[in-house]
Amino acid sequence: MLSAQSDVQVDTPEVRVTEWRLAPGSATGRHVHEMDYVIVPVTAGEMTIVAPSGERSKAQLAVGKSYFRKAGVEHDVLNETSSEIVFLEVELKP
Amino acid sequence: MLSAQSDVQVDTPEVRVTEWRLAPGSATGRHVHEMDYVIVPVTAGEMTIVAPSGERSKAQLAVGKSYFRKAGVEHDVLNETSSEIVFLEVELKP
Repeated sequence: MLSAQSDVQVDTPEVRVTEWRLAPGSATGRHVHEMDYVIVPVTAGEMTIVAPSGERSKAQLAVGKSYFRKAGVEHDVLNETSSEIVFLEVELKP
Repeated sequence: MLSAQSDVQVDTPEVRVTEWRLAPGSATGRHVHEMDYVIVPVTAGEMTIVAPSGERSKAQLAVGKSYFRKAGVEHDVLNETSSEIVFLEVELKP
């Protein structure tokens, strides 16, 4: 599977901001969020979330509509649509 | 002068995310940033920044290109263009 592309925009003692670009058919790979984080969608889109159990769910992204998650989340994130998905991940350093 | 519109999207013990919408001719009003913050532009645009001294400068926003600032910044932010400017402010709670 194609790998999502990431670009670190900000990396300070307080925060790290990473831009993620998921081409159609790509995935981030399974990962654990080590820090609390905010997602800011840059594009609209539908992500496929795969839990460690293998359970699949869909998550809708709307441009500029952010959401917060606590550290500890583990998942893979896939783009099974025909459009690129772009979002920023803002990780809050402890 | 018109007032910028704000909408709090996330407010947890860790972080607050506020969407700011600056119509043409509007301003946030002079304010002090009490927390470190990240700005995520949702639109492109040019902001006019007015320092407490009255000095004016321009800041270019590019969609999805974030930047970080430490607490303590004091300024007014104006939209002197003919297009709406939208960005998210992600404030890091101490």
